[in-house]
Amino acid sequence: MDIQAYMLETGRRARTAARAMARAGTAEKNRALAAIAAAIDGARADIVRANAADLEAGRAAGLDPALLDRLALDDARLDAIVDGLRQVVALADPIGEISHMASRPSGIQVGRMRVPLGVIGIIYESRPNVTADAAALCLKSGNAAILRGGSEALRSNQALAACIRAGLAAAGLPADAVQVIEVADRAAVGELLRLKEYVDIIVPRGGQGLIDRVMRESLVPVIKHYHGICHVYIDDRADPDKAVKVAFNAKTQRYGTCNTMETLLVAQGIADRVLPPLARLYRERGVELRGCAATRAILPDIAAATEEDWITEYLAPILAIRVVADLDQAMEHIFRYGSGHTDAILTEDIARARRFLREVDSSSVMVNASTRFADGYEYGLGAEIGISTDKLHARGPVGLEGLTSQKYVVIGDGHVRS
Amino acid sequence: MDIQAYMLETGRRARTAARAMARAGTAEKNRALAAIAAAIDGARADIVRANAADLEAGRAAGLDPALLDRLALDDARLDAIVDGLRQVVALADPIGEISHMASRPSGIQVGRMRVPLGVIGIIYESRPNVTADAAALCLKSGNAAILRGGSEALRSNQALAACIRAGLAAAGLPADAVQVIEVADRAAVGELLRLKEYVDIIVPRGGQGLIDRVMRESLVPVIKHYHGICHVYIDDRADPDKAVKVAFNAKTQRYGTCNTMETLLVAQGIADRVLPPLARLYRERGVELRGCAATRAILPDIAAATEEDWITEYLAPILAIRVVADLDQAMEHIFRYGSGHTDAILTEDIARARRFLREVDSSSVMVNASTRFADGYEYGLGAEIGISTDKLHARGPVGLEGLTSQKYVVIGDGHVRS
Repeated sequence: MDIQAYMLETGRRARTAARAMARAGTAEKNRALAAIAAAIDGARADIVRANAADLEAGRAAGLDPALLDRLALDDARLDAIVDGLRQVVALADPIGEISHMASRPSGIQVGRMRVPLGVIGIIYESRPNVTADAAALCLKSGNAAILRGGSEALRSNQALAACIRAGLAAAGLPADAVQVIEVADRAAVGELLRLKEYVDIIVPRGGQGLIDRVMRESLVPVIKHYHGICHVYIDDRADPDKAVKVAFNAKTQRYGTCNTMETLLVAQGIADRVLPPLARLYRERGVELRGCAATRAILPDIAAATEEDWITEYLAPILAIRVVADLDQAMEHIFRYGSGHTDAILTEDIARARRFLREVDSSSVMVNASTRFADGYEYGLGAEIGISTDKLHARGPVGLEGLTSQKYVVIGDGHVRS
Repeated sequence: MDIQAYMLETGRRARTAARAMARAGTAEKNRALAAIAAAIDGARADIVRANAADLEAGRAAGLDPALLDRLALDDARLDAIVDGLRQVVALADPIGEISHMASRPSGIQVGRMRVPLGVIGIIYESRPNVTADAAALCLKSGNAAILRGGSEALRSNQALAACIRAGLAAAGLPADAVQVIEVADRAAVGELLRLKEYVDIIVPRGGQGLIDRVMRESLVPVIKHYHGICHVYIDDRADPDKAVKVAFNAKTQRYGTCNTMETLLVAQGIADRVLPPLARLYRERGVELRGCAATRAILPDIAAATEEDWITEYLAPILAIRVVADLDQAMEHIFRYGSGHTDAILTEDIARARRFLREVDSSSVMVNASTRFADGYEYGLGAEIGISTDKLHARGPVGLEGLTSQKYVVIGDGHVRS
């Protein structure tokens, strides 16, 4: 098979479908989403059968159990997929919204209209639910999608793709509005990353290896989620009880998520009050602590943190702790070692809170709240296609709006420029 | 000289200065702008002398007269530069603005704060006024700037750079916040385009050759202004008088600008009413007309348009005219040949106006107004660093806001995620 020709044709079809999608009304798009949900609901047996074949092939290939778990679809996960589609129906349609409409001295009215980006390429790994979730968000935001899932989920994704096509057809929308790449060849990803004529943006969803490859190869702009090395800084004007509660939650509420705290910074003026009770709580949960010299003066039986610890996204029950002189040193640490994802200050001092909010250059900055809140659902976006650690276009949790652009609209009545 | 080491050092200094600029308050930034204006006002003799040396070298090198004209600085142009700086003082500071602050069911408040992008690289050609204009916009938006002007303007830019440094120092802001590259070597541009660790965005301002080079080489994201192949479509439900007035203005108000109409599309139902009076007006102004067969049936003595004409940005008193069947064929033409810059429909029919606004995928879409309005000043942005024909991040005229990003801010009172 000529992968290059196949992907080029996929891109061309997507671009054509994108025009129809940009024109599609909210009712049509919602009809398609509901029809996809119904099709998936009605095809559970087929989907589970296809998934079983993927799982069997995966086991035979020796895939590790965590990956097999992410790959598996059962009734509960299919319920979640169907529910997710119906939730997207309920979201407001961002397309066509006109904002900032104002009259200018020349007499023209100028505003901005929200429009789709065009064609979104999504590259993801084993979870087949992404196929339905990503299709739904692209569809609702008036875009065409090219979805490239992991080869280990190929049969599951094909079964879901059949339902998506059926739903699009039921609503009179082009089947090419959501194309699922059905070739297992890894070269397909490389070709997708070169389709800059036909693809407006690439959203990679997966591990570091995938993100690195996309960043290295892509000629298409990328909305990417890179490291999440999140900090909590306990200021010496923090309320110690709140500080302990938030710092505990930020590390232990879930370990494997990008918005989990990886480094705790503590002002020296409050360290001996908050570190001992925190250490007890962490230890009860089995969190391994690693500290700087000043931390170990207070918690003598923990390991020493090395330079490497400050730049590590553990995604595990491990926490690095550093005692700092003050807010400035805390912000200096975040500037030097942070990843620009999510950082929080715990303080009752409004001037310090204001400085932290203003000066820390991360996609989410927080006062007296757990970093675990950095999430599209918690922020009220209604859905999330990913979290962007880039600064351009979309930053932080990306919902429907991140898949759109704004163009200027000008209304006159025969106005000319003089 | 080691250009690579020089540019790397320039990038590092800019990144450091960017942190101070992000912290700088509105008053400080305005003080710096006013001090730069005063410094330029006070250094007119030095600047004009440096400019005279550039002009002399340019004439000796055989630069063409149009380029020498763009390069020249006289008292009137220095007035405009000083005025421009003072106008930027008067603009609202976008930095720190918090919008969309809302309470979430969890109890946290979530909003978005506008923040600088960081370091802006601007690559431009002979006009030395860009040095002051671009510095002012980057400064006001809290960014650090690396400015690389044309080598033919080197002495003029150095003289302006001295004033900028003096103004920054007077306001207590770092001199590195605006660095003007003072090496003539063209390799400096190539190095700047590779500084992705230190530069957040590149804005090229100049001719097609410059833009092409930047697009080809840049590892840093680019906000670019590409072709402006702007269309006016006269619908058969247009008011013929308004249509003639607007189509005349869109072509003739200025020829060399990117928002000038290059192709006129006319519905067949109205062509014989509007084309003859328009042709008379265009001819009086010396505009050369080139038409499709149907146009030439009405205007027999004009030249035939070729396929090449539909994709040419003339920037000259030449106009391509095509008679189309209807709105759909007009939009099809724009989709196929347009550059996504600015396109207008002239019609009294609201349904057709709505379709055009929604379906034409250009940075500015207009109803009953001249394409010449596509401009940051006309749109009320107060300033313009360029016009973006890209879809991501910034689209259409780019003012201060295009040099910023938004981060999420979260305020709690000890809130944790459950």
